[in-house]
Amino acid sequence: MMLPSLDDIRSAAARIAPHAVVTPVMRSDRIDALVGVPVYFKCENLQRGGAFKFRGASNAVWSLDDAVASKGVVTHSSGNHGNALALAAKSRGIPAHIIVPDGAVQTKVDAIVAAGATIHRCAPTQASREAAAAEIQAATGADLVHPYADARVIAGQGTLVPELLRQVPGLDAVLFPVGGGGLAAGCSIAAHGIDPAIRLFGAEPSGADDAFRSLRDGHRVGPFVPDTISDGLRTLIGEPNFEALREHAVEMLPVSDAETIAAMKLLWSELKIVVEPSSSTVLAALLRYPGRFAGRRVGAVLTGGNVDLDALPW
Amino acid sequence: MMLPSLDDIRSAAARIAPHAVVTPVMRSDRIDALVGVPVYFKCENLQRGGAFKFRGASNAVWSLDDAVASKGVVTHSSGNHGNALALAAKSRGIPAHIIVPDGAVQTKVDAIVAAGATIHRCAPTQASREAAAAEIQAATGADLVHPYADARVIAGQGTLVPELLRQVPGLDAVLFPVGGGGLAAGCSIAAHGIDPAIRLFGAEPSGADDAFRSLRDGHRVGPFVPDTISDGLRTLIGEPNFEALREHAVEMLPVSDAETIAAMKLLWSELKIVVEPSSSTVLAALLRYPGRFAGRRVGAVLTGGNVDLDALPW
Repeated sequence: MMLPSLDDIRSAAARIAPHAVVTPVMRSDRIDALVGVPVYFKCENLQRGGAFKFRGASNAVWSLDDAVASKGVVTHSSGNHGNALALAAKSRGIPAHIIVPDGAVQTKVDAIVAAGATIHRCAPTQASREAAAAEIQAATGADLVHPYADARVIAGQGTLVPELLRQVPGLDAVLFPVGGGGLAAGCSIAAHGIDPAIRLFGAEPSGADDAFRSLRDGHRVGPFVPDTISDGLRTLIGEPNFEALREHAVEMLPVSDAETIAAMKLLWSELKIVVEPSSSTVLAALLRYPGRFAGRRVGAVLTGGNVDLDALPW
Repeated sequence: MMLPSLDDIRSAAARIAPHAVVTPVMRSDRIDALVGVPVYFKCENLQRGGAFKFRGASNAVWSLDDAVASKGVVTHSSGNHGNALALAAKSRGIPAHIIVPDGAVQTKVDAIVAAGATIHRCAPTQASREAAAAEIQAATGADLVHPYADARVIAGQGTLVPELLRQVPGLDAVLFPVGGGGLAAGCSIAAHGIDPAIRLFGAEPSGADDAFRSLRDGHRVGPFVPDTISDGLRTLIGEPNFEALREHAVEMLPVSDAETIAAMKLLWSELKIVVEPSSSTVLAALLRYPGRFAGRRVGAVLTGGNVDLDALPW
């Protein structure tokens, strides 16, 4: 696949504008004091479906021509992307097939069902996910909307950066969590398309630091067994996504789950919003690596708020 | 004391505008479907200090002339009002004495300390609170800013209604939790000052339904022992507050703590925001008494988000 351009991201922004929420930006004096610089949180937990994933999924769904769209869409996802694709498909009135690996957070599965999609279960490995998707594609003709290694998805996720830079002009750093890398790639392309001087940072759990190791070693590492509470960041970074991170010199900042949980509580207490562990890695990184951000105005992406309230990690 | 007028509320709005946040309004398709009518939540959990109380406290603090202000302010409060007064005093650079009854939520006490106020402990009874306040007033000359039976406080709390009606024109019902009744009185005066056709509703825990019983019986009931998780609503309604509720025909809707907790989880899940039990009584009332709201567009006040994350009620 070809990575999208800033123009593709701008087209995506126009395409999803009737469907997606312009999410608010929040900040806190106390967090600024702890980090030492002003931090502007882009609240994608307040996006439709409770996560940024709706941007990419709706861009993909509304990019299809009518004949293709009528056969539906399929994806594999442990949660937020599946829910986002289900919502986007519903808004266009087309079928959605979501392959959910065993062990996914139950509230995320419930949301997919509530959005009217058909759920298919599979083993929690990359190979099982891809095999199940190929099977459903073959049987239904549904269009595969990969959760991150898809130019339409990457372009959609990237739309949050022009929006953020309109809301907070003059940012000189942007920080996002890195899982499969759809958000990271889209945000990097958009940020540097608009202002090549913006510094880019990725936050990643130490127990799923494949992007950190890949960038350090200069090649994409192989499959690994993730060990982190950040359920949205357990995936191996995609190949095109890795290329985008390398090209845009994204600096990866690994954080421990303990740091993530402490940051999550701080975000809940200070901003009064519900965010996922995955989202909280960005504040954990700000607090662990303050030197990286000294003198900068930072935009940090809070990716989602779909949490099982009966199983909070503290 | 004289109850404030709509003009007083408009003056308060101008007075606090440099200090207070214009809080957002949120909604959810799923909640609207469950209630059966459109509900617009005024998010005072996103107010400074995490509660609507900052409106009244800052109106009181900035109403004082310099000579009086320099002696400081004093109040008794189990939490949000104390924190709000501490923050407002700090912004004006004057001392604040906060009398905190034993048993107050620790995170709220921590916030008062963080805001730089002097904490004084007392027994958790109305008599102890008032005696302690009188003592500090006598010793310091500090101005008493009562948490709810104070015209400046009532006017300040009322400022959220003109703000809400600008954000969502055409509401025909406003619903708020009722504790001491400062918010209820201010909102009632403001709403009927702007549009006498607006229907007013109060939500109250069954275990602290003194406003319900007072309005039913036609006179203010006496002190009672509250039994509710809604820590912000355990106070007896004030005398002028009761008169305001009666004059404005506020209909009280009691809800159980179980209903409040279920509503709290639903607000967290659907809106992705952190709200207190006290705030959640409004959604509990909407879900328990849907017939009262049929055919109306409802504004509901989410009063605060100061929760002990280590002691969630589910």
